[in-house]
Amino acid sequence: MNAPYAAASQDILLREDRDGVATLTLNRPAHFNALSEEMLAALQSAFDALADDGDLRCVVIRANGRAFCAGHDLKQMRANPRQDYYEDLFARCSRVMQSIVNLPIPVIAQVQGLATAAGCQLVATCDLAVAAESATFAVSGINVGLFCSTPAVALSRNVPPKRAFEMLVTGRFITASEALANGLVSGTAPDAELDSAVAALTAEICSKSPVAIRTGKAMFNRQRSMSLEDAYAYAGNVMACNMMAEDAAEGIDAFIAKRKPEWKGR
Amino acid sequence: MNAPYAAASQDILLREDRDGVATLTLNRPAHFNALSEEMLAALQSAFDALADDGDLRCVVIRANGRAFCAGHDLKQMRANPRQDYYEDLFARCSRVMQSIVNLPIPVIAQVQGLATAAGCQLVATCDLAVAAESATFAVSGINVGLFCSTPAVALSRNVPPKRAFEMLVTGRFITASEALANGLVSGTAPDAELDSAVAALTAEICSKSPVAIRTGKAMFNRQRSMSLEDAYAYAGNVMACNMMAEDAAEGIDAFIAKRKPEWKGR
Amino acid sequence: MNAPYAAASQDILLREDRDGVATLTLNRPAHFNALSEEMLAALQSAFDALADDGDLRCVVIRANGRAFCAGHDLKQMRANPRQDYYEDLFARCSRVMQSIVNLPIPVIAQVQGLATAAGCQLVATCDLAVAAESATFAVSGINVGLFCSTPAVALSRNVPPKRAFEMLVTGRFITASEALANGLVSGTAPDAELDSAVAALTAEICSKSPVAIRTGKAMFNRQRSMSLEDAYAYAGNVMACNMMAEDAAEGIDAFIAKRKPEWKGR
Repeated sequence: MNAPYAAASQDILLREDRDGVATLTLNRPAHFNALSEEMLAALQSAFDALADDGDLRCVVIRANGRAFCAGHDLKQMRANPRQDYYEDLFARCSRVMQSIVNLPIPVIAQVQGLATAAGCQLVATCDLAVAAESATFAVSGINVGLFCSTPAVALSRNVPPKRAFEMLVTGRFITASEALANGLVSGTAPDAELDSAVAALTAEICSKSPVAIRTGKAMFNRQRSMSLEDAYAYAGNVMACNMMAEDAAEGIDAFIAKRKPEWKGR
Repeated sequence: MNAPYAAASQDILLREDRDGVATLTLNRPAHFNALSEEMLAALQSAFDALADDGDLRCVVIRANGRAFCAGHDLKQMRANPRQDYYEDLFARCSRVMQSIVNLPIPVIAQVQGLATAAGCQLVATCDLAVAAESATFAVSGINVGLFCSTPAVALSRNVPPKRAFEMLVTGRFITASEALANGLVSGTAPDAELDSAVAALTAEICSKSPVAIRTGKAMFNRQRSMSLEDAYAYAGNVMACNMMAEDAAEGIDAFIAKRKPEWKGR
Repeated sequence: MNAPYAAASQDILLREDRDGVATLTLNRPAHFNALSEEMLAALQSAFDALADDGDLRCVVIRANGRAFCAGHDLKQMRANPRQDYYEDLFARCSRVMQSIVNLPIPVIAQVQGLATAAGCQLVATCDLAVAAESATFAVSGINVGLFCSTPAVALSRNVPPKRAFEMLVTGRFITASEALANGLVSGTAPDAELDSAVAALTAEICSKSPVAIRTGKAMFNRQRSMSLEDAYAYAGNVMACNMMAEDAAEGIDAFIAKRKPEWKGR
């Protein structure tokens, strides 16, 4: 079943690994990198593979062309006018998004051009996002009679409620600087410096202890929905385990000795 | 029992419907549009009626006079010094607020002048809020020995915790631009352009598919308290149903054909 | 067991009470006021004592020296390389933090210099925080191979998720104005005016009804994790009780009579 998707993914989704960073590039620029069935399958395969790769340190999702991602493939959706098809499609898309959350290493969206509907959701879902100053964001399904319900899940967990709701009912575009002020992205960069800004961020993450980064991403997401008391009990236990790792001993000894640490763990 | 309220409501709360927009006007300006028993009853009646009106597209709450709303009617409260009276009063007020949340269409606060205590809560509760630049906001019960507990419920679900708590324990006024930065309102406008700014927003919402807007408001509020996994399962199902509606087909076909959609559903 | 801590606490943690305000001063400046075992014990003793003191109105946590607080004492941690030691240490630290949340009166962090790791957590945990403009903030455990897991609990409940996660995986410092924009602190002041800014804030809180402030802090924290319906039921009940207190009657009567209220309750 997965063979056609896998074959297609060689073209529509590129992966390049370098210095511990896996870069996924959405590569269907003529279609604004829409999240077609094929693109979703390619992304799912990519994230499944990344989840098992213990040597990687972080993931970048970027895109070729004028758009980062324009959301679902509307023509493909209209060609399959059945409720079960749509339920399955949105379930697959939601699974891709949750795979990003569940990936043990940080995922960074590198956003150029427009990010709309499920494309905006993809940005909201990543752990970090750096946007080119000319990038724009909208949850624009409302303009075609389709409220961006699944994008709202990710958006409302990052952006204050009135701002999120305004975007959802108006479909209005916001700028990169508005996205930064609203918490949708964590940073912006001049267009010409987007690559280097993301490279600096990934280099910074790669300079840290791998075990500490992996420990942190999982605990950060898990504790958020807990009560304060449960969150502290869980976090304290996680942090005690982290302290027993070689890297914490090395890191603290290096700090005390004012030398650079040499990480062992992964 | 409700007759006196209903009669009074003709004066203290005005309703005008135009082009799919119901505008409720708090009309007790000499009393800063306080949420007296009569005003709460009038608002509850109005929201109950609006909930059943399938032709409307959105609701605006505005006010006559120098104040948007100064919260509860303190004289009336002091005239009834009984715990059961207060419990009933706050329960009725909380029911009004939750009726706004549960109304199937967006509710927009159009805020001029001051919005204090339960008046500030009313702003926080609406789905969207546009404030005149000269509008001011406070949860000022603390100044009369009464912590704004029920307003805190709405405020803390919109404004970051330290900002919300500071407002609650100091009773300090914040400006419209601070309210915007803090997420209490979704937009501001110069005083002279407040009416037109709200009219532009309601026109924008009215230009969208009614079924998509109604779908969206309910799902947005409901999914917020769910786990990520549950929220996605729910949102995916809602979105699949939305795709089966006539309007989504029309909207997407119009988008592909680069023409304006003609909405059918409501 | 507690005797040595109590003895040490006379030096490393100072307490001064004036005009209803208890000021705790972290006083181990040569060690950047690290949260050593001794400091945590001194803080716990101090908060336990404050919880029983019905005459106080609010608490300020400040620090002597160039740092507000640099987090855990890394040398002490490395000298006890046992998982059970770390679990116990983080449990004690988390208990201190939760004691701040559970204290019946507001706790204000007065932040000069740097606040890192559990020191940044301490700022995030306080109900309010005023930072000198030159203050800086980081959750920098990641630099020594130790993800700031327990600090993340407090940070992520105040700061939008992408900003919080970026701080946690990069260890980057943010400025006081960034901390204000992100919700980590509630106010900033020029360095030379930090003392007077906090004094003005405590005077403002002390001018309010004690019973209303105490009512408010507990309800604010408790209702945040409830559903909207449960939160309103709880808040309405709390507010009805608050209305039955002498101070609410006095406050409202004074407001109506345009005179200054005289609070009786505590």
